[in-house]
Amino acid sequence: MPQWGRGLAAAIYDGRMNTLPSTNPAALPADHPFAQVQVLAFDIFGTVVDWHGSIAREVRALYPQVDADAFALAWRAGYQPAMARVMRGEQGWTLIDALHRQILDEILPRFGLAHLGDAERHHLNRAWHRLHAWPDSVQGLTRLKQRYTITTLSNGNIGLLTNMAKRAGLPWDCVLSAEVFKAYKPHPDTYLGVARVFDLPPQQVALVAAHHDDLAAARGCGLRTAYIERPHEFGVAQPKDVSPQPGNDLHAKDLADLASMLGC
Amino acid sequence: MPQWGRGLAAAIYDGRMNTLPSTNPAALPADHPFAQVQVLAFDIFGTVVDWHGSIAREVRALYPQVDADAFALAWRAGYQPAMARVMRGEQGWTLIDALHRQILDEILPRFGLAHLGDAERHHLNRAWHRLHAWPDSVQGLTRLKQRYTITTLSNGNIGLLTNMAKRAGLPWDCVLSAEVFKAYKPHPDTYLGVARVFDLPPQQVALVAAHHDDLAAARGCGLRTAYIERPHEFGVAQPKDVSPQPGNDLHAKDLADLASMLGC
Repeated sequence: MPQWGRGLAAAIYDGRMNTLPSTNPAALPADHPFAQVQVLAFDIFGTVVDWHGSIAREVRALYPQVDADAFALAWRAGYQPAMARVMRGEQGWTLIDALHRQILDEILPRFGLAHLGDAERHHLNRAWHRLHAWPDSVQGLTRLKQRYTITTLSNGNIGLLTNMAKRAGLPWDCVLSAEVFKAYKPHPDTYLGVARVFDLPPQQVALVAAHHDDLAAARGCGLRTAYIERPHEFGVAQPKDVSPQPGNDLHAKDLADLASMLGC
Repeated sequence: MPQWGRGLAAAIYDGRMNTLPSTNPAALPADHPFAQVQVLAFDIFGTVVDWHGSIAREVRALYPQVDADAFALAWRAGYQPAMARVMRGEQGWTLIDALHRQILDEILPRFGLAHLGDAERHHLNRAWHRLHAWPDSVQGLTRLKQRYTITTLSNGNIGLLTNMAKRAGLPWDCVLSAEVFKAYKPHPDTYLGVARVFDLPPQQVALVAAHHDDLAAARGCGLRTAYIERPHEFGVAQPKDVSPQPGNDLHAKDLADLASMLGC
C-alpha cells in the first residue's frame, strides 16, 4: 500500500493515479487512440450476439413451415421505425420488449401465423432474451474486462440484456440501456449518459459496435470508437460490407481481435 | 431441446416453464416463501460491503491523527438526512457521490481537516467506491447466482456500484440503483422498479438487506424479504441488535447461510 502524503493531490490531478479499478490505460502508448479510455460500451444486437441466426433458429424449430430467414429479417426491419415513432413522441416511452411484440403482432399474419395465442406470442417475443453470442464474444469480453470496465449500451431493455447475459455467459460489469437514459441510440443522451454514469470525460469512453451510424453518433459526442466486422449479421445469404471507414479509431475483425489490439 | 407443440401455451400459462434462465424455483418446496422468487435484489452498504470498517481504514491510513471510527460514523450519519432533502424537493435529483461529497465537506472541519484541497477530498470521497465486501459475500453471491438473477438495489449510484463490484469481485448479473428509478429507497418506485425491469410480479422478487426498515418497505410493495445479520455494521465497538423480527420471510446469519437456506 502506498504512503499517502502531500504528493497525492498532484498525482491525482495530473492523471498518474487511476480512479477506476482494474484498468491501466498507461500500458498503451500515449499516442494510441485508446490511451485514455477506461470504459468500453458495447452495442449488443449484431455486435455481441447473432440476432439473425438465433431468431431464425427458434422460428425454424417452432414453425417449420415458415421461411425463418425472412421472418427474422422482417421482425428486425420493424425495429428502427418503431423506435423512431417513440422518439417522435407518437408513443410514450416504450421498452424494446413491447416494441418487439408490436412488430411481431404485425408480421405474424404475413407468415401464416395469425392464429398464435398470447402465450405463444409471448414466448416467441422472448427469443430476443435468448440470443446466442458470436463465437468470439465471451472470450473476447473476458479478456477486455481485465483492463476495462465493460458495459452494454443497447436499445434493448435492462431485463432483456440481463437475461441474455446470464444465458449466454456475457461477463458485463454493468448493464446500461436506453431504459436508463429514456432515449434510444443514436440520441446523444445515451453516449454521454455512459460518460456521466462513470464520471468521465467522453474521450475516456469508447463505443464498440458493428454499425457505422452508431459509431458516428458516438464520435459526435466525443467518444472513441471501435468497429467490429460482423459480415453475417443479416445471415450468410446476405453478407454485409464490412470494409473499414476512416472515421473510426479502431477496426477489428471480432472481439478477440479487439482484445489483442488493446493488449489484453 | 424440447419439441415445442400445442402444449406449450398451457405450460407457459400455468408457470411450469421458466421464462428466466438459470433459475429453478420448483426445487424449493411449494410452501417455501421463496418458492416463486426469481430475482434477488441486494441492499449494498452494510449488507454486502462493510462501509464502516472500509471508511475507517482509509481515513486511518490517510490521516492518522483523526478518530477514524467517529469519522466513518459522522459521514454515514449525514446520509439519510441528505437523501431526505432531495426527496422533499429541496434539491434536484442528486447522485450519492455528490451527497457523500456535500456531507464530507461539512464534516471535515470538525475533524481538523478543513485544509484538504479538492483533489484530496475527491480521492477520499471515492472511498465509497472502494468498500470491502464482508468475508462471506463473494462466495455467497456466487452460490446464489447459480439459481437466481442477482442484482444490486442500492441508493448508491451505478458508477459507484460498478467500480465497487469490479474491485471487490461481486458477481452481479445486473446493477440497479436509485439512479435508474430517480428515487431513493424506501420509495416504492425502487422495489416495484426491480419487478418491472424483470417483468415479474412483486412476489417473484426478494429484497435481501441488513435493515428492517428497508425490508418493511419492500414487503409493503409485495416483495419477499430476507434479513441478514451484520452485527458489526457500525464497528465492533457498537454491536447492532440483529435479533429476528417476525415480518421477514427469512433470517440468515450471512449470505452463505442464505445460500444454504435456498438450496444453492
